[in-house]
Amino acid sequence: MILILQSKATDDQVDHVIEKVESLGLKAHLSRGTYRTIVGIIGDESKLSEERLRSIPGVSEVVPVLPPYKLASLEAHPEPSVVNVSGVQIGGGHLGMIAGPCSVEDADRMHRIAKSVRDAGANLFRGGAYKPRTSPYAFQGLGEDGLKILREVGDEYGMPIVTEVTDPRNVELVAKYADMLQVGARNMQNFVLLTEVGRTSRPVLLKRGMSATIKDLLMSAEYVLSQGNPNVVLCERGIKGFDTITRNLFDVAAVPAVKALTHLPIIVDPSHATGRPDLIPPCALAGIAAGADGVHVEVHDCPEEAKSDGPQALLPDQYQELAKQMRQLAELFQKTISPLPEALA
Amino acid sequence: MILILQSKATDDQVDHVIEKVESLGLKAHLSRGTYRTIVGIIGDESKLSEERLRSIPGVSEVVPVLPPYKLASLEAHPEPSVVNVSGVQIGGGHLGMIAGPCSVEDADRMHRIAKSVRDAGANLFRGGAYKPRTSPYAFQGLGEDGLKILREVGDEYGMPIVTEVTDPRNVELVAKYADMLQVGARNMQNFVLLTEVGRTSRPVLLKRGMSATIKDLLMSAEYVLSQGNPNVVLCERGIKGFDTITRNLFDVAAVPAVKALTHLPIIVDPSHATGRPDLIPPCALAGIAAGADGVHVEVHDCPEEAKSDGPQALLPDQYQELAKQMRQLAELFQKTISPLPEALA
Amino acid sequence: MILILQSKATDDQVDHVIEKVESLGLKAHLSRGTYRTIVGIIGDESKLSEERLRSIPGVSEVVPVLPPYKLASLEAHPEPSVVNVSGVQIGGGHLGMIAGPCSVEDADRMHRIAKSVRDAGANLFRGGAYKPRTSPYAFQGLGEDGLKILREVGDEYGMPIVTEVTDPRNVELVAKYADMLQVGARNMQNFVLLTEVGRTSRPVLLKRGMSATIKDLLMSAEYVLSQGNPNVVLCERGIKGFDTITRNLFDVAAVPAVKALTHLPIIVDPSHATGRPDLIPPCALAGIAAGADGVHVEVHDCPEEAKSDGPQALLPDQYQELAKQMRQLAELFQKTISPLPEALA
Amino acid sequence: MILILQSKATDDQVDHVIEKVESLGLKAHLSRGTYRTIVGIIGDESKLSEERLRSIPGVSEVVPVLPPYKLASLEAHPEPSVVNVSGVQIGGGHLGMIAGPCSVEDADRMHRIAKSVRDAGANLFRGGAYKPRTSPYAFQGLGEDGLKILREVGDEYGMPIVTEVTDPRNVELVAKYADMLQVGARNMQNFVLLTEVGRTSRPVLLKRGMSATIKDLLMSAEYVLSQGNPNVVLCERGIKGFDTITRNLFDVAAVPAVKALTHLPIIVDPSHATGRPDLIPPCALAGIAAGADGVHVEVHDCPEEAKSDGPQALLPDQYQELAKQMRQLAELFQKTISPLPEALA
Repeated sequence: MILILQSKATDDQVDHVIEKVESLGLKAHLSRGTYRTIVGIIGDESKLSEERLRSIPGVSEVVPVLPPYKLASLEAHPEPSVVNVSGVQIGGGHLGMIAGPCSVEDADRMHRIAKSVRDAGANLFRGGAYKPRTSPYAFQGLGEDGLKILREVGDEYGMPIVTEVTDPRNVELVAKYADMLQVGARNMQNFVLLTEVGRTSRPVLLKRGMSATIKDLLMSAEYVLSQGNPNVVLCERGIKGFDTITRNLFDVAAVPAVKALTHLPIIVDPSHATGRPDLIPPCALAGIAAGADGVHVEVHDCPEEAKSDGPQALLPDQYQELAKQMRQLAELFQKTISPLPEALA
Repeated sequence: MILILQSKATDDQVDHVIEKVESLGLKAHLSRGTYRTIVGIIGDESKLSEERLRSIPGVSEVVPVLPPYKLASLEAHPEPSVVNVSGVQIGGGHLGMIAGPCSVEDADRMHRIAKSVRDAGANLFRGGAYKPRTSPYAFQGLGEDGLKILREVGDEYGMPIVTEVTDPRNVELVAKYADMLQVGARNMQNFVLLTEVGRTSRPVLLKRGMSATIKDLLMSAEYVLSQGNPNVVLCERGIKGFDTITRNLFDVAAVPAVKALTHLPIIVDPSHATGRPDLIPPCALAGIAAGADGVHVEVHDCPEEAKSDGPQALLPDQYQELAKQMRQLAELFQKTISPLPEALA
Repeated sequence: MILILQSKATDDQVDHVIEKVESLGLKAHLSRGTYRTIVGIIGDESKLSEERLRSIPGVSEVVPVLPPYKLASLEAHPEPSVVNVSGVQIGGGHLGMIAGPCSVEDADRMHRIAKSVRDAGANLFRGGAYKPRTSPYAFQGLGEDGLKILREVGDEYGMPIVTEVTDPRNVELVAKYADMLQVGARNMQNFVLLTEVGRTSRPVLLKRGMSATIKDLLMSAEYVLSQGNPNVVLCERGIKGFDTITRNLFDVAAVPAVKALTHLPIIVDPSHATGRPDLIPPCALAGIAAGADGVHVEVHDCPEEAKSDGPQALLPDQYQELAKQMRQLAELFQKTISPLPEALA
Repeated sequence: MILILQSKATDDQVDHVIEKVESLGLKAHLSRGTYRTIVGIIGDESKLSEERLRSIPGVSEVVPVLPPYKLASLEAHPEPSVVNVSGVQIGGGHLGMIAGPCSVEDADRMHRIAKSVRDAGANLFRGGAYKPRTSPYAFQGLGEDGLKILREVGDEYGMPIVTEVTDPRNVELVAKYADMLQVGARNMQNFVLLTEVGRTSRPVLLKRGMSATIKDLLMSAEYVLSQGNPNVVLCERGIKGFDTITRNLFDVAAVPAVKALTHLPIIVDPSHATGRPDLIPPCALAGIAAGADGVHVEVHDCPEEAKSDGPQALLPDQYQELAKQMRQLAELFQKTISPLPEALA
């Protein structure tokens, strides 16, 4: 850490700062400039709390020199991680193609949609059985019945399944059925839930919160990693913006910015990011061009009957067309779309 | 609802829209303008899903005419609600003055701080026993031991206590000790947690999420209300902004904007909103001037030793000075700071 | 326009609204719903001021049905416009590749950089002679001397030149030297300047302001178009965001969102959008994948000596590598990078 | 400045950094920590360009220790400045109460409104003769005729007048009529215009841009100050936010945050900040409670006939009521509303 003292810091304050640092078993290196005094702290930074340092009288700014996410950092693991979701690889040049409806609905529809996205080239099937809805009066998902349908459909078409978990009490149940656990944007800082999914061995799809910085996202990943679960895939799904022309603001630069800091894979979700079917294909392609390790798209065969989020789903035909373009783009960048696993775990 | 059709909507699409509306037992009222066709829907709007309507081909925009938060709306309850927290009233001209440290720490310190804020005029004591921390390596709170200290301190000084609950599995436990349950900003859309606190009879302090619109905030309040718990106090604590000069962006206009839509009380939290002790007093006063029903301030007697959020706490002396000014301001606006209860519930 | 009246609108207010509308020679179509009354306005919407309608007592919301940008809208011109910059085409499948340093510096350096970007495949050369700097003490550009260097370099390498104009008094002077006039992000709503560039016949590169919605951007384009200059190219260059990890927030979805509303071409500027050389290539590629009609990149052969914005420039070698990838991507999407003109105008 | 080097910075890079710093006649003070190397620069920081330093290979972050706004800083002028607008004082405990319509309209209406706001207690009269409108088709103001009406009305009621200037070519003309020149939010970074108003001797009302940080605002003030005009009053008028419930986001914390950095007065404009008449009074009061040196409110006697911005104006009666409350609040905080001048300059 580096402490920049206030321009009016008194000698007593400087002494107090140094005393404080040394009381923690660290060394303080004083540098008096023309206008400001700087205290460099030498030793194990992890012993220090940025907040406490900032509370010391006379301290103006605290500049950390190490990332606070240790396990997620490139320093800890310089090579890109490859996350294996029951045989489908994400990261390190392998693309995960997640597709399916927002909510799990009746089994027939699920079969139809799964078949269509698999034929188009998706390698992971998604659907929500527990839905975090802004309205208490909206459809909340089919619960365990939905999980059963998902599992059955995944098995039938040979696709690992991804589904959201919203309640720490349900993590074990959901992990019984699903191949990958999704933590939604609204729960990105639900640390209780992060801790629970970190205690399972299932890969986790961690969506970026709408007001989360990239550092916040990596800190949330660190929660999962610190519990012993190394299989985290990040997902950029749009952050809060001021223009209502799109539902959220697709932060495509987050893809390379994340890759400059962490070994974890990151995919994009243009469905939630834009909320507009006509913008999903261009943003999906933009995500791959920016280096994303996969794309998450909602697909529904009759959006006007969808139990949730119909307006942001592609039709199966549209997805098929998009998948073709994504494959071409992947090839151009020498990446491969992971094949379906031989057999599901 | 009003549907605005796309300028290129075909006659078939218009017919399909009308059919769809009528299939739901509602009436469609068609209005063909020079450039656009409008479909007004007459009947019980609550049967309709805005999302599904927006998914119908040919529909460009859906304009709801009723607020989706029914119980929270002024239509449902035109007079301001007064929430009673074990004898301390918030709302309808009564101000709740919440003060205390970020985290519950050792009992001695809690006693000292509680005594000082009570003497200054605070009527509710706060402290976190379960802390949602961005880092898994940071102090996570004392848990039930912290709740016990809080209860003891509250009893000693005659102040009802407010504390955060972060885990649906702990709601019952926390409700056993606390007079008011806080749902933090990061959990504002943790619908599982909202549902659980809605099932208790404890008043709930619901903090606005960092990317939550006012409508989002009211929808989250609706979750609590819809479970049968009418005692919700909202809290503006700063939203995400682009200027790093303050920790968050204090949206003081949210106070009157909320009051134009709901009967629920709303207080302000200038500690989290600004993250800077020097800005807490002016923003606290601004909140009262804007009509807030109370002020939440973090107070610590040695910020550099605080286990969390030291940099945003006032010293007891500073709080005393602020409390005096808040009292004068309240009088000017003919409001009263609720007295401490005769005896705690 | 559609007026949604307040739920408590009185009959007198409804009558007043209708009277007002009819006084403007338009017809009002009343539709009383269960909860709200709606007034559809039939006739020439362009006579109406949204603001005035919103000021009528009893009116809750005003929903326009026509875009307020007439000339820029797809309704006015359904095919994509192709803007010709002294022989280089932008739009309609033709990509403009703008490259060069932030500021015009000494002639030797300009020659070196121009040669390198031309050899890499750029077809337009940029450099600022009048620099809008946040600090009055920073380098403000070489002025007319800079324009002369630019012109000379453009002529030498056969590249049309693009340069910023910041002062309405200089528009004529700049137009004398430059092939394309840039209006910078900070001047996107400098309507006086927009009007002046609209009076020239030079193509205009209009950068999106940091807090401009897409509608705002199109309204600013409309200023130029309404003066008789149809040659406007829009540019997404990052908007204001809350994460300081990038300088601005690159809104790649703006590219297809703009194309859904206007015939004008839109390019991307990943240099300003990200402010980080390592993020320029992935974001440039993302822009093309999203459908952009060109890419604007700052290139400097010694960023640490650049008179402005060094940290967001690519080195010539890096640009060459990126240009190769952009060309491949363009081919995949069946677009062409416009060749250099035979001779400059 | 302090340079934090990248963790992988090589010895050669460190040497190059030091060489660079010394070549500028400054001293570099090296501090090798456990994880990072820090270079403190000792000497006259104003010789350094943050951008160039950040471009040096191996440099990760540049932390300035001095504010880049020299004349605007508290260091340069520790006491609050009092700006005298033809006899009306703003700052240092004196409140400026600016009121009037958005646009100058017919003389009769101007007289009526001026009389009403003067009687209510306003001490400065405003109205726009040159209007920056987002639409080229909207009313653009009466121009010099409007200035004449304003001057006449100001003289009649003894109120100095404030009006916007948008074009550097008009600055002299506007300064001939007006007592105070307003630079609007959209022109806050129109550096050409700032330079021109800085060359006049008229006080300047500088509105904060919608995406301007407080540092940006102070840098723009510095433009005016650096030209020799010390009379700048800042104005918080709402920044861009994500919630459409208000037109902009009123950043009341900007008031004390600005005061912690500069001696210049700052007022608030709740009309533009909220765009809703019902929110103007609470936000005006919040502004004063937060320490603002004045309040700018739009007042119109028939908003539905206003030529611009009707929806954000108060009626004269509403302003009178608000002015009474503002006066009481000012007294509570021991401030005074400046009296009208004996005679206008």
